[in-house]
Amino acid sequence: MSATTTTVAEAAHGLGLDWNTTDPVEVRRRIRAGRFHGHTGALAKGYVQANLAILPADYADEFARFCQRNPKPCPLLAMSEPGSPHLPELGEDLDLRTDLPSYRVFRDGELDGDVRSIEDLWRDDFVAFALGCSFSFEEALIDAGLPIRHWRDGSLCPVYLTDIECTPAGRFRGRMVVSMRPFTPADAIKAVQITSRYPRVHGAPVHLGMPERIGIEDVERAWQGDDPVVEAGRIPVFWACGITPQVAVRSARPPIAITHTPSHMLVTDVRNATLSVG
Amino acid sequence: MSATTTTVAEAAHGLGLDWNTTDPVEVRRRIRAGRFHGHTGALAKGYVQANLAILPADYADEFARFCQRNPKPCPLLAMSEPGSPHLPELGEDLDLRTDLPSYRVFRDGELDGDVRSIEDLWRDDFVAFALGCSFSFEEALIDAGLPIRHWRDGSLCPVYLTDIECTPAGRFRGRMVVSMRPFTPADAIKAVQITSRYPRVHGAPVHLGMPERIGIEDVERAWQGDDPVVEAGRIPVFWACGITPQVAVRSARPPIAITHTPSHMLVTDVRNATLSVG
Repeated sequence: MSATTTTVAEAAHGLGLDWNTTDPVEVRRRIRAGRFHGHTGALAKGYVQANLAILPADYADEFARFCQRNPKPCPLLAMSEPGSPHLPELGEDLDLRTDLPSYRVFRDGELDGDVRSIEDLWRDDFVAFALGCSFSFEEALIDAGLPIRHWRDGSLCPVYLTDIECTPAGRFRGRMVVSMRPFTPADAIKAVQITSRYPRVHGAPVHLGMPERIGIEDVERAWQGDDPVVEAGRIPVFWACGITPQVAVRSARPPIAITHTPSHMLVTDVRNATLSVG
Repeated sequence: MSATTTTVAEAAHGLGLDWNTTDPVEVRRRIRAGRFHGHTGALAKGYVQANLAILPADYADEFARFCQRNPKPCPLLAMSEPGSPHLPELGEDLDLRTDLPSYRVFRDGELDGDVRSIEDLWRDDFVAFALGCSFSFEEALIDAGLPIRHWRDGSLCPVYLTDIECTPAGRFRGRMVVSMRPFTPADAIKAVQITSRYPRVHGAPVHLGMPERIGIEDVERAWQGDDPVVEAGRIPVFWACGITPQVAVRSARPPIAITHTPSHMLVTDVRNATLSVG
């Protein structure tokens, strides 16, 4: 993801003076009104942000099975009624056609471009899936005093395509995408403990310490996001990533599919703390 | 610990034909009768085994504080009344003077030798401490399907002296001793999850992946126990070890102190499963 719009630091800098960035309802209204198009990472602290995937009904059952079989990259938080752009369990006034700052449109599995609204594209047979996102567990890590390197640097989290094959479901298949955060060994242990409590937002890491063992040749070269800095004494810790369904969509090649643009998430009214299982 | 008596495999081999090795009461009776002197690792499966430390009352309060301040190496399961060789919360008929297969005697902080009974040494001012032991969490790891390399090899768990300073308490101070088990990265993550549920038997690892960062120069050379095999694709995972109090005893230099001989533990009537906090 080179040359993306706004970094987290820029987004945070431009916020908070003239509107309430901590209220998820106001954040969505601001986005819906076309007045915010940046990354959502710094917004609505304490509330769940979600990955979005929208598919024609003909593909929905297969994709639901794909999520069920691959809960670490695709933790399903909510699934819409066919044709409905609403997910009331995630927010009462939530409208999936307008409430994300940027959408990514795929046609026949190929990226067609990013758009700021999908009102024109909406179809009566669309089914929407909201999947857990790492922002939730990053908040838990930060609350526990663990430093998140890419937040400190104001850069995007590095993301890699692994050689770990997801369990296929119908036409959906593909390799797992992972995100990486470097930690000292002692903090890596704490990070496993903390994120294990959040299975609905990717849960525990899938790997640590040996990138080459999951098909990552050079951990300092990200596949998407920004190249990371891994200081001496830090080990790379890898979590399953919500970009994985985009890889599966490329494989399934539906005539149309819509996702969020990376880092431009669906902001919900669900509190992160309610997702903890321990 | 060179030239020790019996390996785990040898101990297991010589057992089980003429007596019930799974009943902790019978195991203790057999030891008390002088009919078993080997490692206890293969005995009384499902029951907690404990590290033992016995000190004169003049040292007991300071040692209790040392345990309280260093709960990972010294998780205190029980503490006796002064002069009492019993720990009723760990076993009704338990007698600390006779019920361990081997004891280690320290005089003025120096190792004086190993003995099979401490009836002759018992004093009215002795206070006994029972500390959690890794056998309990190893059982939980094995039950979850994780391979414990040194069990498979029939060798002793490798143990190292780190450069991690324990929090001192009075005359007790010293560096932390750790035990090591190698795992694949995915299994290392599971091992963190599983052992985190057992804080009373050392809990989560204290370190993984970078032995040199905790003062271990060569992970293939154990300080005590047997030298390990760390296969390619495995990372070393380190847990705080119950041998740590022996280091602190050497520093405090009490006129007399008695511990278990490594791997010759106190077998209790408490079930491992009752120690799980999650």
